[in-house]
Amino acid sequence: MKVSKLGEFGLIDLLAEMVNRTRDEQTAAWQQLIIGIGDDAAAWQGDASTQLATTDSLIQGVHFPSDMIPWEGLGWRAMAANLSDIAAMGGVPGYALISLALPDDTEVEDVTALYQGMIELAQQFGVAIVGGDTSSATLVAITITILGSTREQDKHILTRSAAMVGEKIAVTGYLGAAAAGVRVLKKHLQLDPEATACLKKAFFHPCPRIAEGRLLIEQGVRTAIDISDGLISDLKHICQASRVGARIEVDRVPIEPTVRANFGDEALELALSGGEDYELLFTADTGSIDKIRAAASCPVTVIGEIVAGRTGQITLVDREGKPFNFPQAGWEHFTIR
Amino acid sequence: MKVSKLGEFGLIDLLAEMVNRTRDEQTAAWQQLIIGIGDDAAAWQGDASTQLATTDSLIQGVHFPSDMIPWEGLGWRAMAANLSDIAAMGGVPGYALISLALPDDTEVEDVTALYQGMIELAQQFGVAIVGGDTSSATLVAITITILGSTREQDKHILTRSAAMVGEKIAVTGYLGAAAAGVRVLKKHLQLDPEATACLKKAFFHPCPRIAEGRLLIEQGVRTAIDISDGLISDLKHICQASRVGARIEVDRVPIEPTVRANFGDEALELALSGGEDYELLFTADTGSIDKIRAAASCPVTVIGEIVAGRTGQITLVDREGKPFNFPQAGWEHFTIR
Repeated sequence: MKVSKLGEFGLIDLLAEMVNRTRDEQTAAWQQLIIGIGDDAAAWQGDASTQLATTDSLIQGVHFPSDMIPWEGLGWRAMAANLSDIAAMGGVPGYALISLALPDDTEVEDVTALYQGMIELAQQFGVAIVGGDTSSATLVAITITILGSTREQDKHILTRSAAMVGEKIAVTGYLGAAAAGVRVLKKHLQLDPEATACLKKAFFHPCPRIAEGRLLIEQGVRTAIDISDGLISDLKHICQASRVGARIEVDRVPIEPTVRANFGDEALELALSGGEDYELLFTADTGSIDKIRAAASCPVTVIGEIVAGRTGQITLVDREGKPFNFPQAGWEHFTIR
Repeated sequence: MKVSKLGEFGLIDLLAEMVNRTRDEQTAAWQQLIIGIGDDAAAWQGDASTQLATTDSLIQGVHFPSDMIPWEGLGWRAMAANLSDIAAMGGVPGYALISLALPDDTEVEDVTALYQGMIELAQQFGVAIVGGDTSSATLVAITITILGSTREQDKHILTRSAAMVGEKIAVTGYLGAAAAGVRVLKKHLQLDPEATACLKKAFFHPCPRIAEGRLLIEQGVRTAIDISDGLISDLKHICQASRVGARIEVDRVPIEPTVRANFGDEALELALSGGEDYELLFTADTGSIDKIRAAASCPVTVIGEIVAGRTGQITLVDREGKPFNFPQAGWEHFTIR
């Protein structure tokens, strides 16, 4: 069978099963493991705090176009995607390792621009770039690994698997702008310059929600994921891991205003399945969400509720509570679309 | 300027300089950092022990042939290369993250074979595979990150930068077999089946010297590197970082017996610059080396001495102490050869 038939998530499940079959409780590493394959980051018990680690790749021709590479933005985005996974665990990032594959004829100034993007964001979050690997290759591939940790006083971390029936589903910030930015780039759409700049920024310079992840921890939230594949797809990950269903009121989804103004009927689709916004999606009671909203520096919007029913099933409803039909799922590697 | 003109090590120096210029002593990550870019692994002060992290990629068409991929061996080798970097710091590996880029038409059974190779070696060393990333791509690329640590009682780690004039240079195991294995594969050499099997095994199933790295720490050794680029190239890394020179007696270099028997005059070249043997190269006084040799489960051979003189200069001499001419350096990405 080809991996394209199994799909990305099917492949991950298969590999996770292989690894977990060899779990050896006699070894220190396995004994101290808290979260293995299948969450935003791995987590294990360190000497005083929980240690977090995550890795994420950007591949030419898949995650960004082959022809025109905006090196600085690419570096920023690669770093942001990884920091976002640490945010989704409620952790604080510490160290970064960068693995670069580059064609021999790459301009040195392009590589330094790439690093400039990574360094800028790393500086903002107090992350030290401490190592990596460089290889010759026929295409550009960037793999970043981030090591982080929780604070000593933290009682828990944010996982995908703790959502409970009755909890509200909330999201930080606005959705859809990164995916709209991709459309602008790919289809060379002519929007007004301000809108174009806003959407490109959303794609190339997303801001990982580290502070908001910490807020969630402080308010006792247990369940979160970052929106990388798309709202529905990532909510599905939570529902499957937590063995619950979800109900989303589509009119409440906070579509990014520029997207709403420029993409008509497609705006909702971009917000629901566009992905790469790197906002946090979480579940909590109303009281906690109100406190988070009061303290957060970005909007925090309730968009639905965790419900009983078939595991992983997500129901979309309109303003009147009527079913809203929406076939499009989020991003999944290897699958043919 | 193209990266091919700057070369891999020139590029690494340039990027390390960029990163180190932004070093921020106000942040915890930088304050706790012990070793950043430029050693086998990064090291920082954890709560009780030193934390280690390293990453390394294998790229199709660069590190292994495009046509025939021996998936299981590839998985083993990718894991071994990373574990070897932890060995070269004197650490104990704990956790692995695996980032895979795969063409859509890759067979699922090939991916599970790849994972089987990684899992087997991980199990041998008590390493838990705890996360990663899978992407669609036009070629196969495997990036592994290993997190490790020292033992609490350890007083130091092994670095590249502590070699002192007068110390002997020693190496674990035998050299040249991995590079000979590559020649067998690439040139379809017809050796006897036992020799072929031995050399292929050296390439696809190297054994990281974790136990030997621990022995070095126990005996107070301060300086080591793993032989990945080639003996001379890796010794040069030590000499440059330590600001010393080195003198190697070529007749003492422990050429792998199968290589010696089958490659004639080329055998020494394979041992000196072949690379990918993943043996440890270290410097120490004779007394410590004798104790290490007595305790090690592999040969430990003195091959030369650290000398004063031009930083990074390596002199090769024959049995009579006469200069031995050897132009070939080790592996370096991006450079035209």
